[in-house]
Amino acid sequence: MIVVMKSGATEAQVQSTVARVEKMGLKANVIVGTERTVVAVVGDERVLDAPSLEAGDGVAEVMPVVAKYKLASREVRPESSVITVGGFQAGGGHLGVAAGPCSVENEEQIVEVAKAVKAAGATGLRGGAFKPRTSPYSFQGLKEDGLKMLATARDETGLAVFTEVMSPEEVDLVAKYADVLQIGARNMQNYRLLEAVGRCDKAVLLKRGPSATMDEFLLAAEYILDGGNERVMLCERGIRTFEAHTRFTLPLASVPYLHSKSHLPVIIDPSHGTGHTYMVHDMAVAAVAAGADGLIIEVHPDPPNAASDGYQCQDYAQFENTMRRIQKVQKALTD
Amino acid sequence: MIVVMKSGATEAQVQSTVARVEKMGLKANVIVGTERTVVAVVGDERVLDAPSLEAGDGVAEVMPVVAKYKLASREVRPESSVITVGGFQAGGGHLGVAAGPCSVENEEQIVEVAKAVKAAGATGLRGGAFKPRTSPYSFQGLKEDGLKMLATARDETGLAVFTEVMSPEEVDLVAKYADVLQIGARNMQNYRLLEAVGRCDKAVLLKRGPSATMDEFLLAAEYILDGGNERVMLCERGIRTFEAHTRFTLPLASVPYLHSKSHLPVIIDPSHGTGHTYMVHDMAVAAVAAGADGLIIEVHPDPPNAASDGYQCQDYAQFENTMRRIQKVQKALTD
Amino acid sequence: MIVVMKSGATEAQVQSTVARVEKMGLKANVIVGTERTVVAVVGDERVLDAPSLEAGDGVAEVMPVVAKYKLASREVRPESSVITVGGFQAGGGHLGVAAGPCSVENEEQIVEVAKAVKAAGATGLRGGAFKPRTSPYSFQGLKEDGLKMLATARDETGLAVFTEVMSPEEVDLVAKYADVLQIGARNMQNYRLLEAVGRCDKAVLLKRGPSATMDEFLLAAEYILDGGNERVMLCERGIRTFEAHTRFTLPLASVPYLHSKSHLPVIIDPSHGTGHTYMVHDMAVAAVAAGADGLIIEVHPDPPNAASDGYQCQDYAQFENTMRRIQKVQKALTD
Amino acid sequence: MIVVMKSGATEAQVQSTVARVEKMGLKANVIVGTERTVVAVVGDERVLDAPSLEAGDGVAEVMPVVAKYKLASREVRPESSVITVGGFQAGGGHLGVAAGPCSVENEEQIVEVAKAVKAAGATGLRGGAFKPRTSPYSFQGLKEDGLKMLATARDETGLAVFTEVMSPEEVDLVAKYADVLQIGARNMQNYRLLEAVGRCDKAVLLKRGPSATMDEFLLAAEYILDGGNERVMLCERGIRTFEAHTRFTLPLASVPYLHSKSHLPVIIDPSHGTGHTYMVHDMAVAAVAAGADGLIIEVHPDPPNAASDGYQCQDYAQFENTMRRIQKVQKALTD
Repeated sequence: MIVVMKSGATEAQVQSTVARVEKMGLKANVIVGTERTVVAVVGDERVLDAPSLEAGDGVAEVMPVVAKYKLASREVRPESSVITVGGFQAGGGHLGVAAGPCSVENEEQIVEVAKAVKAAGATGLRGGAFKPRTSPYSFQGLKEDGLKMLATARDETGLAVFTEVMSPEEVDLVAKYADVLQIGARNMQNYRLLEAVGRCDKAVLLKRGPSATMDEFLLAAEYILDGGNERVMLCERGIRTFEAHTRFTLPLASVPYLHSKSHLPVIIDPSHGTGHTYMVHDMAVAAVAAGADGLIIEVHPDPPNAASDGYQCQDYAQFENTMRRIQKVQKALTD
Repeated sequence: MIVVMKSGATEAQVQSTVARVEKMGLKANVIVGTERTVVAVVGDERVLDAPSLEAGDGVAEVMPVVAKYKLASREVRPESSVITVGGFQAGGGHLGVAAGPCSVENEEQIVEVAKAVKAAGATGLRGGAFKPRTSPYSFQGLKEDGLKMLATARDETGLAVFTEVMSPEEVDLVAKYADVLQIGARNMQNYRLLEAVGRCDKAVLLKRGPSATMDEFLLAAEYILDGGNERVMLCERGIRTFEAHTRFTLPLASVPYLHSKSHLPVIIDPSHGTGHTYMVHDMAVAAVAAGADGLIIEVHPDPPNAASDGYQCQDYAQFENTMRRIQKVQKALTD
Repeated sequence: MIVVMKSGATEAQVQSTVARVEKMGLKANVIVGTERTVVAVVGDERVLDAPSLEAGDGVAEVMPVVAKYKLASREVRPESSVITVGGFQAGGGHLGVAAGPCSVENEEQIVEVAKAVKAAGATGLRGGAFKPRTSPYSFQGLKEDGLKMLATARDETGLAVFTEVMSPEEVDLVAKYADVLQIGARNMQNYRLLEAVGRCDKAVLLKRGPSATMDEFLLAAEYILDGGNERVMLCERGIRTFEAHTRFTLPLASVPYLHSKSHLPVIIDPSHGTGHTYMVHDMAVAAVAAGADGLIIEVHPDPPNAASDGYQCQDYAQFENTMRRIQKVQKALTD
Repeated sequence: MIVVMKSGATEAQVQSTVARVEKMGLKANVIVGTERTVVAVVGDERVLDAPSLEAGDGVAEVMPVVAKYKLASREVRPESSVITVGGFQAGGGHLGVAAGPCSVENEEQIVEVAKAVKAAGATGLRGGAFKPRTSPYSFQGLKEDGLKMLATARDETGLAVFTEVMSPEEVDLVAKYADVLQIGARNMQNYRLLEAVGRCDKAVLLKRGPSATMDEFLLAAEYILDGGNERVMLCERGIRTFEAHTRFTLPLASVPYLHSKSHLPVIIDPSHGTGHTYMVHDMAVAAVAAGADGLIIEVHPDPPNAASDGYQCQDYAQFENTMRRIQKVQKALTD
C-alpha cells in the first residue's frame, strides 16, 4: 500500500502516518519526493482497512497495491480450475454451454427445451424457478414445482441443471434439485447468501453485479471459496453504462482480465449482456473467440410467447446455428 | 405503452401485434406514420411483461408510458408522506437528520456519539451492527451486542435508532432493537429481504443501489409497501459512474425527480455519496437546499481511528458546523 | 414521435399540444388511455426540435420514434457500403486491418513498421503526425514531417495511410499525404472539422466519442455524408464507464447494432478499447468473430520505448500471431 | 509515481525498470514488499509519459502521484482567482450569474431577455450565435448576426456577454463581440481551439466534457492558461451516466473537488446539467449552497416556443424566483 501525503504535509504528519502503519503491525518506508512524500507500506495489507489511513492529517490518498482476495487469485493457485458437473465442463480449455428458458413454465416445455439444446450441443440446462423480478406484480416463477420439473428434465437428458437461488433459507431446497446454484447479479453482494452457498456442496455460478468492480466481483467469489466451496464459476453478464441500445453493456475484456487475476472459469451471458435476441449470436461467438470458458444462453421454443425475457431469447434454430458457429471458432482457436 | 413497428413491417405483422395486445386484455390503436407504424396500447399495462412484445416479428421497440409502481406513486397518493419515528420526522417540510458512526464499536462510544449528535441537532442515531463488507476478511460488526448498545444509546438520548438488516432471517432480531431498518444499497433488490421488512412494523430506510434506475428504486419500495409497511424512506447515496475522485457520484437531482414521482420522503447520504470527509459538509448543505427531507451522516469522535469508513466520517466539530449551516439554509428556503 | 401527456393533463393542454404539432406541419393523433393521454405525431419528425414540445404545459415526455440521421441509415441504403482505399477494403465481407505506431517517430521506424505489418497481413498503416494529447506538456507529434514519413512508407509498401486530422484548417495539409483521414474520439462532435472532411475527397475513419450515444455517433457521420463525402467508416474504440481495469470499455455489441442501423463499415480499435497490450489479441479476435469489418491496431517495434501509448501496443510477434488467428476465425465464420 | 511490479517479477526486471526511470532523469527507490516490489519514482514526473513504463517486462501497474497540470493547480497558486468582466464577478466569494436563451433568435428578443435577467439580478447574458447541434439538420444559429444582437443587448444593459466559439478560425470574430468565450462540452478537448482562446484577451468559460475526468478537465484549462490567458472559469454541466431521467447527471461534488485542486472559479450549469426545467431551480440553489462561484442558466420568454432547448429553459418568473432564493441562501452561508 502506498500512502501519498499532501503537498506541504509536515514531518509530524508523516511520522503520525508511520506510527499508525506500525501500530497495524506493518513496516513503513518514507520516500521524500520533489513535490510529495509517500509512505510505502510493507506487509500483508489485507489485514487492515486501508482507506481509513486517508482520514489522517496530511494524507492525500491511499493506493492499495495488493488485491484483497486470496483464494480466488491466480497468484495463490496458478493453474486454471476446471469445473465438472456431469457432462458439463468449464475451464482449462473446456467450453461449457448451458441453455434454456428464462423461467420454467411447465414440465413438457422444459423437457422439450432440454432435449433440443442437448441435441445442439449444450451440456447444461438453465431455467428459473425462483425468479427475482423488478416489479412485485410480475410473474415470480413456479418455485419448488419448477425445481422438480428441472430435475425431471435432467433425468431425461443428463444435462447439468443451473437455477437461481435467491435467499439463504432457500439454499437447501434448491440444492436438492439443482446441480449448479446460480447467484443472480442483484444478489452478488448478498453476503448471507454467499455464505450459505459457500457451505453447500453444489457448484456455483456467480453473476457479476451490473455495477460491481472486478475487485468486488472476485471478493464475492472469495466469500464462497472461504466458506469451503471451491467450485465457483464467474459469470460476466454485462454492466450498466449510458448505452441505451443494449440493456447492459457486455465487456468481453473481462475474459482476459479475469483470466489474468483468477484461476476460476469465466462464463459469458450474451442474453442478459445485450438484452436483444438479434445480438446474441454475434456476442456468443465473440465471447468464445475472446477465450471464455463457457456460455449461458436463453433459449425458448416460442420467444414471443415466453413468460419472461422473450426479447432476448433465441429460438431453437438460432441456438443451433450459434452452436455450430461456436464449434468452428473454437476449432480455429486451437488449430 | 407504444409498440413501434420496424420500417417495412407488413400488415400481417402489425395485426399479429394487435392480436397479442388484445389477448392481454388491452386495446390497440394502430397509427400509420410516414415512416413507421406504431401501435398505441390502452389499458393497465402493468399487468403485462411489456418488453416481451419486442420478440414479435416486425417489432422494433416497445416504449412503456406508465411506470409499474403504484403504491409508491404520487399519482396514487398526491400528498407527501411524513415519516415520524419518535422525535425524528422526515417529509412534508420536516427535515430529519440521523448521524453516527459507520460501525458500533462499544457501548461507551455509541452513547457518547449519540449525545454529541443530539446536542448538534440530530434526531436519529445511525450505527451498524451487522456490516456488509466487500471482503470476507474485514470487520463484520458486533451483531446482536451492537444492537443492544444502540438500544442503550436510544434509552439515554431518545434518538431514533437506524441500523442495517442484511437478511430476511435477521429482520426479527434487528427489529427488536431498532426503530428504522436500513436496507443497504447492495441489498436494494434482495427481494426476500424487501418482503420481510414489508411484513414488519418498523419504518424502513431503503438505500438506492449504485446502478439502480429510478424505476427499479421505486419498484423496490413498492415491494415493501405492497407487503403492508407504509413507512418507507428513499435514500439516495450515490451512483457508480466513471468519476474516480469521489467514491460514488451523488446526483442531487434525484430529490426533485423523486418528489415529482413519489410521495415518499427523500433522504440524502452525503458520506457514502462522496466518500471523502472534506466534501460532506458542502453536499449536506446542498442536499437541504435541493429540497431533501432528511440526511444520514457518518460521525465519529476520532475518524482516523474508526473501525471502518474513517475517510468519510465527520468529527463532532465538523458535524456541528454542518448542522448550524443547514438550519440557516433551511430557514432561507422557507422565509 | 409520441408525446406523453401528464396524468391529469387537461383537454386544453392536449389541444395546445396538438396545435403546436400541426403548426410544425405534422399530423397529430390523440389516444386517450386509461391513465395517460398520448399524442402520436405523424410526418417527418426530423424537421423539428422534438424535445421542445416537452416545454408545453401538461406534457410529461416526448419519445422520438425515428432517428434523425438519413444518409447513414440502412433504411435509406439497404446494401452494405464497401470502402476501398488501395489494397485496403472494409465492409460487405471484406476485413481491412490498419496497424502501426501511435506516433510516427522517424522515417526509418515507420518504413520498418509498414513492412512488418504488411508482411503479417495488414492492408493499412496507421500513425499519428498531429497528436491530440491530454496534457499540453506531452509530445505533440512530428506534424508535417510525420506526414511525409507516412507517405514514404506508403510508397515503399502500398499500404493505405490512416492518420488523424485535428482541425479544419489542417485538413488540406493532411489530405495531401494521407489516404484515410482519422477523426479522433475527442473530435467526434467538432462540427467544423466534420464539415471540412465532408468537403474532402479522402475516406474518413470516424472514431466514436467515449460518451457518445449511437444516435450522436451516426449523426456525426451524417455531417460528413451530408457534406458530400460518402466514404465514412465508423470506428468503435471504447466508451467511458466505471470500469477501471481497462482504460475504456469496448462494447462489441456495437457491431451488430451499427450493422442493423447503418450501411457503413464498422472498424474496431482493440488498442484504445482496452488500453492494455495483454488484452489486444483476445479483443481483436473477438471483434472479427462479432462481425467487424475491420481493425485498427497499435503496433510498435519496441513498445517499452514508444514515444506514446507503449502500454497498449503490440510488438511484431504479437501482431503476427493476432493476424494468423484472425484469418482462421474469419474462415471459420464463412465456411 | 509508483511502479508496481508483478508478483514474481525478477530482479532483472526490477533493475530494468530502475534503469528506464533513471534514463528519464528521475530517481528510483526500490521497496521490496511481502508480496510485491514497488519502485517509487522521485522527481518531476510531469516530463514523462508515465503509463509507458507499464509496457516494461514485469511491470503490473503505474500509479501517478502528482497531477500533470501546474498553472491550474492550487498548489502553484493558493489564493482563489477572481474573474471580473464588467459587472460580472466570479470566484473568491463573488457569485456571478449569466442567464439568457439557448440561441439568440432576434434582436428584440435578446434585448428584452437581457433587461429581464438583469432586473432579476444576473450580471451576465448568455446566448448562442454559433450553435453546435447534434444533427446537421437542426437550426445552427444566426452566426455573426447573432453576435451583433448580443453586442446590442450588452450596450443596452451593461451585462457581460457569454457566447460559444466552435472553431479556431472563428475566435477573432466571436471575440470582437463577446466578453466571455464559451468552449462547449463537445469541444473541451479540441486542442486547437483551446490554443486559440489561450492566445486571446477575452475571459473563457470552459465547459467540462460529459465524460471528461477531472484531470482531463484541468489539463484542458491548462492548455488555455499555458497559452497566456489567465482568465479561465471551469463550468460543470453534467456527466454522462446510466441515469435516464435527467439528460446528464450533475455532480455538485465537483465544486469542493475543484476548489481543493484549483484556484479557478467553478460555475454550475443547472440547465444542461439536468435537462428539465422543473429541476433547474432546486439544482441552482443547491449549487450555490455547495459553494459554486457562479451559475449559467437558460432563460427564455416563452420556453415552449424557443428555437432550441425549450425543455430546460426557465421563464422570467421562474428565474426571478430562483434568483431571490439564491440570494437568501448565499446570505445564509456567509452569516
